[in-house]
Amino acid sequence: MAEQEGITIKKEDFSEWYTEVCNKAELADIRYNVKGFVVFRPWAVKTMNNMFKLLEDELESKGHSPALFQAVIHESNFKKEAEHVEGFLPEVFWVTKAGSGAEKLEEPLALRPTSETAMYKMYSIWVRSWRDLPLKIYQKCQVWRYEGKATRPFIRGREFYWIEAHDVFETEKEAMNQVKEDMETTENTIHKKFAIPFIFFQRPQHDKFAGAVNTYAADTILPDGKVLQLPSTHLLGQNFSKSFNIKFTDKEKKERYTWQTCYGPCVSRIFAAVIALHGDDKGLVLPPEIASLQIIIVPISKSKDDEIVKKAHDIYKKIKHKFSAMIDDRTEYTPGWKYNYWEMKGVPLRIEIGPRDLRNKQFMLVRRDTGEKIVVKENRIEEIEDVMKKIQENLIKKADEYFKENLREAKNFDDMKNTLEKKGGIVKIEWCGKKACAEDMKEKTSGGVIRGTMFGKEEKPKGMCVNCKTKATQVVYIAKQY
Amino acid sequence: MAEQEGITIKKEDFSEWYTEVCNKAELADIRYNVKGFVVFRPWAVKTMNNMFKLLEDELESKGHSPALFQAVIHESNFKKEAEHVEGFLPEVFWVTKAGSGAEKLEEPLALRPTSETAMYKMYSIWVRSWRDLPLKIYQKCQVWRYEGKATRPFIRGREFYWIEAHDVFETEKEAMNQVKEDMETTENTIHKKFAIPFIFFQRPQHDKFAGAVNTYAADTILPDGKVLQLPSTHLLGQNFSKSFNIKFTDKEKKERYTWQTCYGPCVSRIFAAVIALHGDDKGLVLPPEIASLQIIIVPISKSKDDEIVKKAHDIYKKIKHKFSAMIDDRTEYTPGWKYNYWEMKGVPLRIEIGPRDLRNKQFMLVRRDTGEKIVVKENRIEEIEDVMKKIQENLIKKADEYFKENLREAKNFDDMKNTLEKKGGIVKIEWCGKKACAEDMKEKTSGGVIRGTMFGKEEKPKGMCVNCKTKATQVVYIAKQY
Repeated sequence: MAEQEGITIKKEDFSEWYTEVCNKAELADIRYNVKGFVVFRPWAVKTMNNMFKLLEDELESKGHSPALFQAVIHESNFKKEAEHVEGFLPEVFWVTKAGSGAEKLEEPLALRPTSETAMYKMYSIWVRSWRDLPLKIYQKCQVWRYEGKATRPFIRGREFYWIEAHDVFETEKEAMNQVKEDMETTENTIHKKFAIPFIFFQRPQHDKFAGAVNTYAADTILPDGKVLQLPSTHLLGQNFSKSFNIKFTDKEKKERYTWQTCYGPCVSRIFAAVIALHGDDKGLVLPPEIASLQIIIVPISKSKDDEIVKKAHDIYKKIKHKFSAMIDDRTEYTPGWKYNYWEMKGVPLRIEIGPRDLRNKQFMLVRRDTGEKIVVKENRIEEIEDVMKKIQENLIKKADEYFKENLREAKNFDDMKNTLEKKGGIVKIEWCGKKACAEDMKEKTSGGVIRGTMFGKEEKPKGMCVNCKTKATQVVYIAKQY
Repeated sequence: MAEQEGITIKKEDFSEWYTEVCNKAELADIRYNVKGFVVFRPWAVKTMNNMFKLLEDELESKGHSPALFQAVIHESNFKKEAEHVEGFLPEVFWVTKAGSGAEKLEEPLALRPTSETAMYKMYSIWVRSWRDLPLKIYQKCQVWRYEGKATRPFIRGREFYWIEAHDVFETEKEAMNQVKEDMETTENTIHKKFAIPFIFFQRPQHDKFAGAVNTYAADTILPDGKVLQLPSTHLLGQNFSKSFNIKFTDKEKKERYTWQTCYGPCVSRIFAAVIALHGDDKGLVLPPEIASLQIIIVPISKSKDDEIVKKAHDIYKKIKHKFSAMIDDRTEYTPGWKYNYWEMKGVPLRIEIGPRDLRNKQFMLVRRDTGEKIVVKENRIEEIEDVMKKIQENLIKKADEYFKENLREAKNFDDMKNTLEKKGGIVKIEWCGKKACAEDMKEKTSGGVIRGTMFGKEEKPKGMCVNCKTKATQVVYIAKQY
């Protein structure tokens, strides 16, 4: 029998707990022999596939279509937008050779760190008239970044999986509306389905995406009080349409440059938030909406085909059209071993059937999120649906509460520094708006970074910058980050 | 109004017709400025996504799980299996530099041309005991090959999209059974759903996958008489388990090397067969089972909201749960323009509703595959389902008939050469089994390649090799290939 051991208590050492869950729930393996590259194992990929599907469906329902662009970008494309290349150059891997003699390629090819410069080359060919707009295309792909910081499965590595949606409009106003739509997409998927709460910030000018007019990004708070960036939307304005020459003829037959946005939910990274926020001391906890296996049925029996196992199959047949379910009828493991195993894997609901249940025409539900046990009569099987809804709601509620508890306010520098050090989370402050002051704060707080102003909510500063004590120009939020 | 022109007659110039369909149905764009790299546009990607889904569901139903391995392979892994590296080295792109100063990486990284050497590194860690077997993992990904021949969208390029399934077993027999299962997977998806007929061959020894014991591969015949390789399965035996040290402890506690297979349906390439085999002089024709849009509803009206358009919405509401459907109610285009547009896109079924249909409480179905028009009474809407089934069946039948017609037999060399030149297709011959003779035939027939023996059917030669006239040892099939 495969051995099972307990895991580190999450509250005591979140970092170690996270590593152990990634290993023991068989989510990722860092033992691949290329630095910074992590293997994603089936249990993680099945869940991420569901997350991708929900995001893709949401994007398609809002008028996006999928495409596939190349992974390699010609050096000349890559260097077209000056700020963009400056921002991304340090992170690019270059393909320089090929073939049996490893001949040098005529021009080096960049492995895409993001796809603006691959896609917009084609957009300049495809966009001709107002009839071609809006153009809303996304691709599901991986990107590569020559990341220097320590590798953490799903959180940080040199190859990660995301969706990037690149939209083109006639007017600035439409582009700005797209930012709002992207926030809605984030709410409908990442909050409602993945149960991850967030605030959508407008990042400070000094921290925007290379080549953007403005960057808007969702942040969540992990159990150690540090924030993790979820999807971001970049208002690109006409920066790229001018450097890539993306023009259209409007209804008045005038030629104009387009307005653009891009949106990038990094699914492998968002999965890190799912692990971190919902998991507990028994392992992973998956929200029903994204669990690849929603119900595990464990017959309490040593046989492969007694009355108890038959009952398990009866129940399975009745629920399989509504839920993804499976019977664990392996005889080489005890029921207790199986409980631990599927709890570690985060399956939302367990059904147990023992001799007494058989006699009483009932079965037992065990909720993964609360451990609650619920006896259900065989003729009331539809109750499962209600329980499943409650699990999803409870995970959202718990995560929301944790998030709210960790939104704080500080009136002065010491207060802010103390909060960041002792409690973590996101702290609301007033700030002068200057980059140098932000950098000074980051150093003095050992990593406190200004996340920006809250998007869609006007908050006016009333006093002085908490750090430099000059007149505050913005109400912003600061946090330590991953 | 966007202009529409006719396309080249498929029978007269298949190659030009193929290029035009790829352009006019907006499937691919070759104008990206990196040689050999083609952009896949939304209409192609939506269809390929359905093809991927069917293959993934079939693989999962047969016990495979999805994983994601890295795109880059350490040089030392890549070089572990001697034959494998020799076969693939000429096709590898190398990542050698990274970062802002484009510093040289400590060791060059291969962009995967196929993933054996990435995955088996991990398999050697994961496989410990018989309990871990069989291990059946697939990944959906792209691979890169430094291809020298001319680029053709979907048929040949330097980056293509596939699924690769890598399976590990205790015994040779189980591995051999996997080959049969893979053939079944190919039949259930590529034949029954994509409507592409094929023969599963065992390739000659001199033409097997680099590092395999045997290669089995499905071939179909394109309209120009040349064959296109569809999925292949490689029986790897213990070649890779020995070079990567993949061992397990069996039930008798003895340590043994595993037996392995891999299976690779290249979806972007199989999509080329879908375009080529089903398309006609009006453009693409998509089998209902893989069409992302199965029904286009065209109200014959100049208004956005008259009775006809309302009726179109009524019908849409009634069918949308069964089929993927859409109403084309754009007022800037005529019905005739729309018919051409959606025929070019290959939508299997069109519903037309005009004033007369409104009066007679009916609507018109137009089949894309045959052009047949069918009047359906409003209260008999369920007839659509039957028509859709017939379209799928008809496409399979037509493709099967074409395939059968192009299977021929030749008793001597001249007969074979003539058949390959004038008719194309696959020609059955008797052969001595020698590589030199096969190469000689290839030269003398300007490209006739021996595809191998028919898998699962024993055919015994009775005479002499058609080429060298020594005793024939195999009944094989020869064809010109893509």
